[in-house]
Amino acid sequence: MSLYQNLFDHFKKISDLEHVQAISFWDEASMMPVGGGEVRGEALATLGVLIHELKTQDRVGEWLDRVTDEDLSGSEAANIREMARQHREATCLTGNLVGELKRSSSRCEQAWRQYRNDNNWAGMQPLLQDVVSLIREEAAMRSGSTGLPLYDAMLDVYEPGMTSKKLDGLFAGLTSFLPGFIEEVLALQESRPVIPVGDHFPVEKQRELGMSIMATLGFDFDHGRLDISHHPFCGGVPEDVRITTRYFEDNFVQSLMGVIHETGHAMYEQGLPRAWLTQPVGNALSAGTHESQSLLMEMQACRSIEFLQFMTPVAQKIFLGHESNDPAWSVDNLHRLYTKVERGLIRVDADEVTYPLHVVLRYEIEKQLVEGAIEVKDLPEIWDAKMQSYFSLSTADNYKDGCLQDVHWPSALFGYFPTYSLGAMTAAQLFNAAKLQVPEVLDEIRQGNFAPLLSWLRENVHNKGKFMSFDELLIGATGEPLDAAFFKRHLQQRYLGG
Amino acid sequence: MSLYQNLFDHFKKISDLEHVQAISFWDEASMMPVGGGEVRGEALATLGVLIHELKTQDRVGEWLDRVTDEDLSGSEAANIREMARQHREATCLTGNLVGELKRSSSRCEQAWRQYRNDNNWAGMQPLLQDVVSLIREEAAMRSGSTGLPLYDAMLDVYEPGMTSKKLDGLFAGLTSFLPGFIEEVLALQESRPVIPVGDHFPVEKQRELGMSIMATLGFDFDHGRLDISHHPFCGGVPEDVRITTRYFEDNFVQSLMGVIHETGHAMYEQGLPRAWLTQPVGNALSAGTHESQSLLMEMQACRSIEFLQFMTPVAQKIFLGHESNDPAWSVDNLHRLYTKVERGLIRVDADEVTYPLHVVLRYEIEKQLVEGAIEVKDLPEIWDAKMQSYFSLSTADNYKDGCLQDVHWPSALFGYFPTYSLGAMTAAQLFNAAKLQVPEVLDEIRQGNFAPLLSWLRENVHNKGKFMSFDELLIGATGEPLDAAFFKRHLQQRYLGG
Repeated sequence: MSLYQNLFDHFKKISDLEHVQAISFWDEASMMPVGGGEVRGEALATLGVLIHELKTQDRVGEWLDRVTDEDLSGSEAANIREMARQHREATCLTGNLVGELKRSSSRCEQAWRQYRNDNNWAGMQPLLQDVVSLIREEAAMRSGSTGLPLYDAMLDVYEPGMTSKKLDGLFAGLTSFLPGFIEEVLALQESRPVIPVGDHFPVEKQRELGMSIMATLGFDFDHGRLDISHHPFCGGVPEDVRITTRYFEDNFVQSLMGVIHETGHAMYEQGLPRAWLTQPVGNALSAGTHESQSLLMEMQACRSIEFLQFMTPVAQKIFLGHESNDPAWSVDNLHRLYTKVERGLIRVDADEVTYPLHVVLRYEIEKQLVEGAIEVKDLPEIWDAKMQSYFSLSTADNYKDGCLQDVHWPSALFGYFPTYSLGAMTAAQLFNAAKLQVPEVLDEIRQGNFAPLLSWLRENVHNKGKFMSFDELLIGATGEPLDAAFFKRHLQQRYLGG
Repeated sequence: MSLYQNLFDHFKKISDLEHVQAISFWDEASMMPVGGGEVRGEALATLGVLIHELKTQDRVGEWLDRVTDEDLSGSEAANIREMARQHREATCLTGNLVGELKRSSSRCEQAWRQYRNDNNWAGMQPLLQDVVSLIREEAAMRSGSTGLPLYDAMLDVYEPGMTSKKLDGLFAGLTSFLPGFIEEVLALQESRPVIPVGDHFPVEKQRELGMSIMATLGFDFDHGRLDISHHPFCGGVPEDVRITTRYFEDNFVQSLMGVIHETGHAMYEQGLPRAWLTQPVGNALSAGTHESQSLLMEMQACRSIEFLQFMTPVAQKIFLGHESNDPAWSVDNLHRLYTKVERGLIRVDADEVTYPLHVVLRYEIEKQLVEGAIEVKDLPEIWDAKMQSYFSLSTADNYKDGCLQDVHWPSALFGYFPTYSLGAMTAAQLFNAAKLQVPEVLDEIRQGNFAPLLSWLRENVHNKGKFMSFDELLIGATGEPLDAAFFKRHLQQRYLGG
């Protein structure tokens, strides 16, 4: 048997185990009764260790060293490249650090649920300090393995090829533009307020609308489901994608756009290259690319006036039982509702205009935390200063809505935040290219037909898996590398109509 | 580290992997969309091979050989005995046979779904012949490993310690008694027919009743769930038991008793010894013991007049919205409904009186099939002859309701059928002992209080795990080994009132 075949079979085995891991994670979040949590944690820890062992086996390293002597196709070579990445990322950390990080972040994340609620920074600080100390060790080990600067080595795990230098350039365009732009948008929106749409939307009807819109977008229900969880997510495996939402009976806006967002993620998974699904190269390209697919559906396609022209009568029939001329239920009013901009303290509640500033704030802080340029004890003050600067809002003494609001840092996730805004910028650039290359895209969306858009995405993004780099993918699809100008132009057109 | 500790950790690891396996099986049956099936099969096959490898590792055999030199407690020695059983059962079959059996039975079971539907015996016969040939090899290997006769070696996997000699004795009492008894019961029941109870019971209300009765029985919803699947089952893990049912909107009888049956299984799992759940000795004792717990709830406790006195007003309120004096909804009529006896062709639809004859018929046939005394081609004729003899019913040319009705043989499950009736007899003997030792059991059930019964079961059955043999457990709980007389007396009292 060739070394390539050995590696292929080995990573197929890992993929099979990651399948039951993914289903068990989904189950834990959406189905599991509370009493099952402890033993599920044990079971998933054992499975995680086993998968880690398979990725780090010495023979995998030996096979990877020698497989380059074999006659490999371009696809096989790309697959080997991604296997080597997984092997390197798994082996570059000492087992000791992995164990300490797991214990420390697990303790910190569990405490965070209580301390955030209690606005208790004093309790949180030492636990977070422990996590950050270990993250600095992680960054040093990753940096040693990749030769990248400390923070870039962390970023590279989620967004291969992305660097803080590139990020600084992309984000500078936003931080100089957004604060003034937000002023203008708020002033304009104040002059045409949203008419309230009602305050009782039964869960069953919201679910009916969500499922109906998922089908419209092109979600394949033979290969996926919609369920409920506390934090919406997209999980499962490409052949069986599990998305979740949560419902608030007093409004349907949040859950519906959440469903559309996760459907964007899900259709990426459903569109990954079928023949390569068991292999590393068949996975999604990066976290930013994944987010671009959810945001392209949620922000670009489904907050458009064209989509609302399609969706408004569908929602009227489901919630009112019939079509209606009530001005509150007009396309324009729903569009105002779905494009309402507000300065707020909370990232996850932010609209697409203010969101990037929340991300840049976190990026700037976490980069310095990883590099050791700032310390955990100074977080509240730094956070407050940046909120003042970007939003003219204060979080002084308000830790729960300030530096304690996100689960990322307590759970040892550093280097991930930037991918949200990379996704938003990528979505704008891709959607712009789709409209240019397939001019009927918006007209068809107005008819509830997403097939032209989906087929463009399948061909230009989904089917590519990890066969090319992010830059190559974007140049192939849009003719140029990522440029924040598309996102800025999108915001200007949608929010100031210019 | 002691060898015992090595073994303990090793089997804990296996238990953790069996956890995600169990959750994935449950998901496949109750949640998975159709398109996820193929890749789920792959993933579970990989996981199954991995678990099998862990059980058969040479070092496990070496540890087991040498661990007896260590100073072990009685519990630890019992755990070692059960580890050795698992190791022996996994190692006594060649890898080649395991693979062939898996392929052959998978092909046969899939074809069976179609061929049964089409009443196509000619298509089924060669596939079933392949399975039986391999089963004979399996029996020979198991017999070589245990020293037991061929069929007993198969039976021992599901019912350790049970032999065909003991079964023959137990079943002889039933086959001589039941045909005449059924005649008498049918004549009596004809004189007092059941009044129809209605024909529309919405799924949501059936589910409400089912959940309410599960809570009454003592099911712990912090450690389990109720869902829907095509074939009801009890799965998951002891800390998170997943039971399923299916609903027919034209009657609530079937689903409710199905829920009660699975709840009996579930409470056994929930009551297994907590401190030993990751270890072989912490598992359920045997298939027959498991079935005794489901049948004790379903047949002994919940088809009693006392339980129906409790349940009737509960069901009235849920289905009618209020209590009712309608004779159709009287306790007596519901009791007649729940104890209706009918001679039928189908085992899974059979009542507790006729069920054992279905089992004995299969036991007699499968024993001879395993031993090579009869051949697959003769199955339809033999089946028909036995149906004539036990039920005065014919299955000539009716394969789908005859020898093609069960999934067991196509899926290579031989030696399992007897455990259904062992369960029924054990349930009768245990319930009799519970009533003698805790005289208030039935009075409390009449009040909807199952605590006295459950606490007796916890102490005498559930908490015992696999620490003792079936005979030891039954003698400990009831004072004597299994005796069919308790089951016969139960039938006589319930169905002829004498």
